[in-house]
Amino acid sequence: MTARSIDLNCDMGESYGPWVMGDDLNVLPHVTSANIACGFHGGDPAIARKTVAAALAQGVALGAHPGLNDLPGFGRRNIPITPQEAYDITVYQVGALAGVAASQGARLHHVKAHGALYNMAAKSAPLAEAIARAVRDVDAGLVFYGLAGSALVRAAEDVGLITASEVFADRSYQADGTLTPRGQPGAMIETLEASIAQVLRMVQEGKVRSADGQDVTVRADTLCIHGDQPGAVTFARGIRAALADAGIAIRTMQRQA
Amino acid sequence: MTARSIDLNCDMGESYGPWVMGDDLNVLPHVTSANIACGFHGGDPAIARKTVAAALAQGVALGAHPGLNDLPGFGRRNIPITPQEAYDITVYQVGALAGVAASQGARLHHVKAHGALYNMAAKSAPLAEAIARAVRDVDAGLVFYGLAGSALVRAAEDVGLITASEVFADRSYQADGTLTPRGQPGAMIETLEASIAQVLRMVQEGKVRSADGQDVTVRADTLCIHGDQPGAVTFARGIRAALADAGIAIRTMQRQA
Amino acid sequence: MTARSIDLNCDMGESYGPWVMGDDLNVLPHVTSANIACGFHGGDPAIARKTVAAALAQGVALGAHPGLNDLPGFGRRNIPITPQEAYDITVYQVGALAGVAASQGARLHHVKAHGALYNMAAKSAPLAEAIARAVRDVDAGLVFYGLAGSALVRAAEDVGLITASEVFADRSYQADGTLTPRGQPGAMIETLEASIAQVLRMVQEGKVRSADGQDVTVRADTLCIHGDQPGAVTFARGIRAALADAGIAIRTMQRQA
Amino acid sequence: MTARSIDLNCDMGESYGPWVMGDDLNVLPHVTSANIACGFHGGDPAIARKTVAAALAQGVALGAHPGLNDLPGFGRRNIPITPQEAYDITVYQVGALAGVAASQGARLHHVKAHGALYNMAAKSAPLAEAIARAVRDVDAGLVFYGLAGSALVRAAEDVGLITASEVFADRSYQADGTLTPRGQPGAMIETLEASIAQVLRMVQEGKVRSADGQDVTVRADTLCIHGDQPGAVTFARGIRAALADAGIAIRTMQRQA
Repeated sequence: MTARSIDLNCDMGESYGPWVMGDDLNVLPHVTSANIACGFHGGDPAIARKTVAAALAQGVALGAHPGLNDLPGFGRRNIPITPQEAYDITVYQVGALAGVAASQGARLHHVKAHGALYNMAAKSAPLAEAIARAVRDVDAGLVFYGLAGSALVRAAEDVGLITASEVFADRSYQADGTLTPRGQPGAMIETLEASIAQVLRMVQEGKVRSADGQDVTVRADTLCIHGDQPGAVTFARGIRAALADAGIAIRTMQRQA
Repeated sequence: MTARSIDLNCDMGESYGPWVMGDDLNVLPHVTSANIACGFHGGDPAIARKTVAAALAQGVALGAHPGLNDLPGFGRRNIPITPQEAYDITVYQVGALAGVAASQGARLHHVKAHGALYNMAAKSAPLAEAIARAVRDVDAGLVFYGLAGSALVRAAEDVGLITASEVFADRSYQADGTLTPRGQPGAMIETLEASIAQVLRMVQEGKVRSADGQDVTVRADTLCIHGDQPGAVTFARGIRAALADAGIAIRTMQRQA
Repeated sequence: MTARSIDLNCDMGESYGPWVMGDDLNVLPHVTSANIACGFHGGDPAIARKTVAAALAQGVALGAHPGLNDLPGFGRRNIPITPQEAYDITVYQVGALAGVAASQGARLHHVKAHGALYNMAAKSAPLAEAIARAVRDVDAGLVFYGLAGSALVRAAEDVGLITASEVFADRSYQADGTLTPRGQPGAMIETLEASIAQVLRMVQEGKVRSADGQDVTVRADTLCIHGDQPGAVTFARGIRAALADAGIAIRTMQRQA
Repeated sequence: MTARSIDLNCDMGESYGPWVMGDDLNVLPHVTSANIACGFHGGDPAIARKTVAAALAQGVALGAHPGLNDLPGFGRRNIPITPQEAYDITVYQVGALAGVAASQGARLHHVKAHGALYNMAAKSAPLAEAIARAVRDVDAGLVFYGLAGSALVRAAEDVGLITASEVFADRSYQADGTLTPRGQPGAMIETLEASIAQVLRMVQEGKVRSADGQDVTVRADTLCIHGDQPGAVTFARGIRAALADAGIAIRTMQRQA
């Protein structure tokens, strides 16, 4: 039931024009899939091209990372949108990044929604269904990344997409399997050791100890590496070493032909 | 040598959010190909979806209409860009619109650059080559629309794309085959009759009488209908009737598989 | 207690680049104050200049109409913002429009928040307080327009601004003095007659009959004319004639020196 | 004839949303005037507020730094604009920043155009005149910063503004007093020593040795510190020490009441 391998994903290509964000080139060697910004919350055509090229050079799987049309807010503000709007912006951005991939002789591997789009859809079946349909309608072979146990994963399964359940190493979980909201005590896992322990157990046993001490079932197909944080590379190295020691393969899943 | 058919193309989908531009639904029945804005100079994901759907419903060929990343200037300002930038913005926008088409079970048929991107590349071999390569790299089967006799058409032929040479009914030509610049005396052809006569001769004889009275060779594969002008529908009706009377078919060319 | 005069205000200058919105030049002769977009939800520097000039030519009072930084959504989406963000965007936009006014030898008269910024702040004391402080901090003499009976008006009074309580002719009221939400039965007042009757009573008696039949106290300093609706000019003419017949002056209030 | 004091100015507040640019807080203690981005090429309302507050805390003079409406290009692309457009965008942005200053109980001290707006206007009398008029029309007491010897300074003098002639420490000059274009051999002055020597001579003698060895007259009221370059703080410290040793005061000029 539990995976003996895991994918490491990271958001990338979120610079904009002359403004730099993240440390993409240093993080890339440590991950197996890249979620590349599509220009709505960050990224632009030149940065998308460079990021796709860098990922291809490292053999990292290419993903589109569509966000809300909210550059000033970096796609992190919970702008109320209809499912139709979620559908439209997803189609557009996945198409754009698929074009960039195609121009380099490659294909997209997956889609992971960004920021507020991800968070709102994780809790909203209609939004999740709209995003999943959009991805399927553009390319039914894409892998759909979503918060483990959330509406995103259920919606993607419902429309027939391969899914990747995403887990977090630096966030604690609640008894219902959701993340403890940021700002609440115990929301963040502070030490590398505790992060690694949580990840290993999720991969090996399919379980996580919730903040209030209960064992919760969780599916861990892919682990989020936060590339915009100072210790990103250090963390990525640490988790890779621990996974290797435990005999867990680090690889991404296959997309459908 | 001369065509016995012609395509009628029109820019569409250039509204933005709540701001309306053009009269797309009334123009669509009169044209055979639609150049649909991709969000950089106009258009947005919802408008692209609606415009693609409306074109499909009318059997009108779908084209991407990429422009400069210049919403405030509607893509009409001659922003100096490098060939690499031209390549990048074309890839991105063609990909985005291809995604919208795919989500509706359709495929793009052609690409026509917008405004300043079209005008600058018509005169610049490096820009034209960059745009043509971008189109080919995303989808080598697309038809490439460009100003008849310009660098755009030559570049597209060089990279192996099918081309459509575009002519204008309301603009006069110079002895070297270029358009008389707007603002110069005689640049605009004012009457419907003169416009129709110019088009018929271009299609039937492959020639146009220049503003200074010389016969110039011109290839007329597609005629631009200006959808944002008041008399667009009237003009389209008139030109269609005249073409029909002359036994000239109105149809678009085939894209490559 | 009740006013014997009323101001007629209208949102203006909401075109953007080549995209036209509203019928400003035809509405201007019928109103006494103009709320001019500041470039965040609509409007741009050229349009602001022209709108200020047109309002000055008609003797219409100049107002800034700041909105959320949300051009794609025309400032109508309820983007969650902090009071600090509300403060910042208000300062910026009021300053910008004050600059345009100054460049034409004039001064701003009032500020009215736009769309979602207005609606959210009408119900949120912290947002309302932030906006009111922003206005006062830029120019303490400005008149602050806000929904009659709402947090906006209370906050502006608290920081010492002159306020103008805004009422609507085409919307019904609830027993607590708030507007019946759009979409609920009876939310819209459909006929010109009923609209005029509601306005006259608000001005003459300071009362409005709520949708469920109760008399509610309401202060009517300024009436909103919806300039982007087809019948705007007709409605403005009708209401002006009725107000004149009833001996009610149509004029705006004085700003403080 | 020559100044015995000089102003050190630096562009600031050019971050955008979550994207950071420059090292404002570390540069501020070393300069006497700050050119603060106004949101068109960089900056946003929150960043403007913070930058104004930081400058005030250090006693640094507040300047508006208006740019082209070109966020994707950071205002560095030579977009062809009319003088009217230059006027409009300058009025708007100076007004916006004046509002931010007013909200903190302060006043703007100067205006310096950014990037392509500065460079194009330095060579174009009509653009320079439009920008100078815009500044005067918003606040006739502002100091106008422009390239020494350029159309910017002449235009500002013509409309009656106080001017500050700007010089550069890291760029060489040509015999006609203009900067050697970047990319040409000898355009950049590479060493701190040579930079300091050039500045001292400009301030003390009003002369600069051109790249081809001639002495050229130059007026040096203000020196540009490039805050976005790695060695900015080191350079600023070095130049300050050298100026102090030479008995040259570092201070900005007075704006008019």
